[in-house]
Amino acid sequence: MASTQTPLLDRVAGPSDLRILSDAELALIADELRNEVIDIVSETGGHLGSSLGVVELTVALHAVFNTPMDKLIWDVGHQCYPHKVLTGRRDRMRTLRQKGGLSGFTKRSESAFDPFGAAHSSTSISAALGFAVGRDLGMPTGDAIAVIGDGSISAGMAYEALNNAGDEGRRLFVILNDNEMSIAPPVGAMSTYLSRLCAPDPLARMHSLTEGFEAAMPPPVRAGMRRARQLVSGLPGTGTLFEELGFDYIGPIDGHDLGQLLPVLRAARARATGPVLIHCVTVKGKGYEPAEKSADKYHGVSKFDVSTGAMNKAKSNAPSYTSVFGETLTDEASRDPSIVAVTAAMPAGTGVKTMADRFPGRVFDVGIAEQHAVTFAAGMAASGLKPVCAIYSTFLQRGYDQVVHDVALQGLPVRFAIDRAGLVGADGATHAGAFDLAYLCSLPGFVVMAPSDEAELRHMVTTSLAHDAGPSAVRFPRGAGVGAELPERGDILPIGKGRIIREGEEVAILSLGAHLSECVVAADLLAEQGFNPTIADARFAKPIDTELLADLAATHSAIVTVEQGAQGGFGAHVLSHLANSGALDRGLRIRTMTLPDRFIEQAAPNEMYEDAGMTAQDIKEVVRALYARETKILSFPAVG
Amino acid sequence: MASTQTPLLDRVAGPSDLRILSDAELALIADELRNEVIDIVSETGGHLGSSLGVVELTVALHAVFNTPMDKLIWDVGHQCYPHKVLTGRRDRMRTLRQKGGLSGFTKRSESAFDPFGAAHSSTSISAALGFAVGRDLGMPTGDAIAVIGDGSISAGMAYEALNNAGDEGRRLFVILNDNEMSIAPPVGAMSTYLSRLCAPDPLARMHSLTEGFEAAMPPPVRAGMRRARQLVSGLPGTGTLFEELGFDYIGPIDGHDLGQLLPVLRAARARATGPVLIHCVTVKGKGYEPAEKSADKYHGVSKFDVSTGAMNKAKSNAPSYTSVFGETLTDEASRDPSIVAVTAAMPAGTGVKTMADRFPGRVFDVGIAEQHAVTFAAGMAASGLKPVCAIYSTFLQRGYDQVVHDVALQGLPVRFAIDRAGLVGADGATHAGAFDLAYLCSLPGFVVMAPSDEAELRHMVTTSLAHDAGPSAVRFPRGAGVGAELPERGDILPIGKGRIIREGEEVAILSLGAHLSECVVAADLLAEQGFNPTIADARFAKPIDTELLADLAATHSAIVTVEQGAQGGFGAHVLSHLANSGALDRGLRIRTMTLPDRFIEQAAPNEMYEDAGMTAQDIKEVVRALYARETKILSFPAVG
Repeated sequence: MASTQTPLLDRVAGPSDLRILSDAELALIADELRNEVIDIVSETGGHLGSSLGVVELTVALHAVFNTPMDKLIWDVGHQCYPHKVLTGRRDRMRTLRQKGGLSGFTKRSESAFDPFGAAHSSTSISAALGFAVGRDLGMPTGDAIAVIGDGSISAGMAYEALNNAGDEGRRLFVILNDNEMSIAPPVGAMSTYLSRLCAPDPLARMHSLTEGFEAAMPPPVRAGMRRARQLVSGLPGTGTLFEELGFDYIGPIDGHDLGQLLPVLRAARARATGPVLIHCVTVKGKGYEPAEKSADKYHGVSKFDVSTGAMNKAKSNAPSYTSVFGETLTDEASRDPSIVAVTAAMPAGTGVKTMADRFPGRVFDVGIAEQHAVTFAAGMAASGLKPVCAIYSTFLQRGYDQVVHDVALQGLPVRFAIDRAGLVGADGATHAGAFDLAYLCSLPGFVVMAPSDEAELRHMVTTSLAHDAGPSAVRFPRGAGVGAELPERGDILPIGKGRIIREGEEVAILSLGAHLSECVVAADLLAEQGFNPTIADARFAKPIDTELLADLAATHSAIVTVEQGAQGGFGAHVLSHLANSGALDRGLRIRTMTLPDRFIEQAAPNEMYEDAGMTAQDIKEVVRALYARETKILSFPAVG
Repeated sequence: MASTQTPLLDRVAGPSDLRILSDAELALIADELRNEVIDIVSETGGHLGSSLGVVELTVALHAVFNTPMDKLIWDVGHQCYPHKVLTGRRDRMRTLRQKGGLSGFTKRSESAFDPFGAAHSSTSISAALGFAVGRDLGMPTGDAIAVIGDGSISAGMAYEALNNAGDEGRRLFVILNDNEMSIAPPVGAMSTYLSRLCAPDPLARMHSLTEGFEAAMPPPVRAGMRRARQLVSGLPGTGTLFEELGFDYIGPIDGHDLGQLLPVLRAARARATGPVLIHCVTVKGKGYEPAEKSADKYHGVSKFDVSTGAMNKAKSNAPSYTSVFGETLTDEASRDPSIVAVTAAMPAGTGVKTMADRFPGRVFDVGIAEQHAVTFAAGMAASGLKPVCAIYSTFLQRGYDQVVHDVALQGLPVRFAIDRAGLVGADGATHAGAFDLAYLCSLPGFVVMAPSDEAELRHMVTTSLAHDAGPSAVRFPRGAGVGAELPERGDILPIGKGRIIREGEEVAILSLGAHLSECVVAADLLAEQGFNPTIADARFAKPIDTELLADLAATHSAIVTVEQGAQGGFGAHVLSHLANSGALDRGLRIRTMTLPDRFIEQAAPNEMYEDAGMTAQDIKEVVRALYARETKILSFPAVG
């Protein structure tokens, strides 16, 4: 049992228990907490590196601030495992990221110590400012503290919040957790700037122009601050970037040294009257050698062996959609020098790393900056290049206005590669790619494709690259394909044309995307009962294959659409077309199987689809009922 | 004729004609161009102040750079009138913002001199970087120049682009057009910072660490630069914020003095190897006294009398939706101190200024920062406040991920007041509020309302404020209401319940929002022909009134939905519900009248709806056909 090695931690039921401990005991707690987190994640998998990087910070924040009355907001929230251990959730930590278990992120419904949930980056300062205003307007809430990484602070949203918070001048704490590592190594000028702040220069090492803070700092910090202040005193434009934006800046300090963290946080808490930024330097994966050495690999891990660090990843025989995309893109890029790719801090996750390895000058990692990524791609398209903008479905939401205003309205041929479409598993509802069909299919001129297997993905990437007339998107799921035989090179598919997979009668299943395999299973189950539905693969969510629809409508009495997405997407557009073309007037029955109108909680992807009512069995039942109803209706006069 | 006063301008058919003129002649051109723009806008209305602020800059940029091979990208694009005059569109300037006329913004389809269209803010640096990459990868394009205002640069997207461009290090020009005035007076720490850069301090006045530029500068600029460089040389962290982000910084210079602009731009063009930011200080409305004195009022103007500045605004007897919203909000805020409001640089446009005038401490203008605005509001909601986030439909697109991730997923009761929903007139397709129903109705737990008149708006604002169980939105159109009698105070409407406006038979018109008046006109036209359709006002796009739908379906043979929005919105969700509940199985005919699947070009709003096929006459015809079809079908055996 891990608990035998954590005698002090065992006495901590909640943060208030930390506040009666000595600083020396807090340091021991931190050590125990680190071991506990390693032990937990070795069993559950999850975001190990970022959690290990904030162990001391977590202890210090809860020891100094009065959580949960003070609102501690973890940006992204994936570094919250030590926070969860300390805030009454230790006994459920082994259920992390599992069905019915604790979320891998902060979550309001889980604990009063999670005042604002997260999972997407760069939201914490905005939320914290909201709490600060609430406090100032009499709501029962104390201080607001945002903890944000150097990767997350590169997103525009964080800058907007800093800009506003600096101007508002309210008491507010922003902890910059600078580990020089978002997921991949950092990019962007801001990252370079932060490195300069950490350089061994007396001026850059210790900055603050606020006399009050300086006196309250521990001696080593104080000396540096005084030297810095003397050097720059009276010169405008010489503060840090954060000071220019209206924050008091303290740092950089060692985020693993409670001897620095505790006095700095105590002093800041005692004296701040406005916004304060505390710059902590941490090491991702701190204290676990395999994770320190390979922070990228240990950002999110599978279950692993603590002693060796070896991960226990489930193997699949089929390649992942991501890897097929990456390989296809790279292959096409080798034939056409005008193909370029853009990623927002996810070169490995999106698969564009494969292309970057071979054509580094043509792949652009812009950092966590989806808005810029989309319009940057639009600019490249306007210059004549063929940009592929590879962003997960859930994160493309952050570039939605740019998709509308810069891409769709101008009809620019930007190609979107939308990975993680549909339900994604352990990352839960915040990472589900549920809405892309709804938000893309209503945009004029967009071509939206969804492959039913990895061979189809290859065709669609090729098709997208060949489609110069306007914007296009290929949305595909997380994980392994079905093992389809991959063609040497993709075909250019006819735009807006689906295909019949299986000819049947009475009821047609019209599938979009990777749920086709479930539809086939459903049809096989029905065949056992003597029913023989047609199966069609729409391939395109937009434009809709109106000929195929007319054929299906003419030869069937019912159509069931199936898609891995929310209401208002493919099925809704099919329905609208059929209704407005009069095809429904004769009583053609339609059912649209989509994600239900609620957020689906974390579980294995197949469990999530079960929760959503979208298994092969569910499809079978919907189709079966349509056969039954048909019989019943035929025995009565049809209603006019 | 204006042309009698523009002898030099008359000889300029395009920018190449500028390049053979002397600097003295260019100054004369600028004077003539200013008068021409004032004269044009007095006839057409439009964005006067911002255009007058960039007259000299426009002349200088086209004289120095090789447009259109060099790509000049105006951020927002509303300051482009002098640019359009100089780039071959002078003869069509009096058609500005009218049906079939020139756009009030830059637009790719209009001219090769508009390489990247705009209308929303803060996209120019991203697009320019895209062109710069295109050039470096061999596309036939020259330099890329983004001109961005101090208001636009406060948006996160611009920061993301600066951060990436500074890191990329490619040759790129960003002109910061600093008039200390976005639309309303500026807010945010960045704005304060820019003011400090312009302060009369030798260090702050003239910054550049780049020797090469300094030598090439005109003498007064050079002297200041040298002094600045000497003072700060060797000190890290002492450049301007832009230098910290990797840009060479030149400025501030007087953006109305061609004697500074021309040599600075020439030097920058001759010597830049990486990204350069040129900080120009300009005066909004420069050279036209009424506009200089009241830059807010003259940001966008109606037709006006040049000699007096008096605007010729069309009067309406009915109050605008905006003013009814503002008054209702203020009234409710006077009863409930927990009500707060957020605007993104649009206090007057959104109507929250009415509340700000009375309760200044409870209204927050965060600048052009919609992402932050939404999550800041979510944070306030989490603290117990009742935030109203007032953002135009088209601009809320920029906070879409925050609406999903921070508001909907957490079920936080943020109230969205979405003005300018539907088609908006002269601002054209870029400003249309076409997509909010599609992107909001697919979000679980959202309540989405649309008032059919200004009295309904009052009820819905009250309803929204009373709805604490989750997020809600009220979307309403631009312009005047219908003159409905306003209740003293709004009622709390039952969530998800529509109302019958007129009982009829056979066909039901189910209207959502302000198009109800068109539906009533359509019904009146039909009554003349002996048809009597039912009219229902859905009030709620989400949740859908399933009881009302079941009633309508049971008692009518056809339903026509009508909404001021794109496909995939209200009608699609109504259809999905009817189809999946089996209500369509008997042959109930449905038509969904939405905006068509294309962007609608600028015109008067009623002309735009005509273009969209959504006039009362169009509705009448759709309904009439359903009556006809009914007759026809009844004469044949119904199809099973």
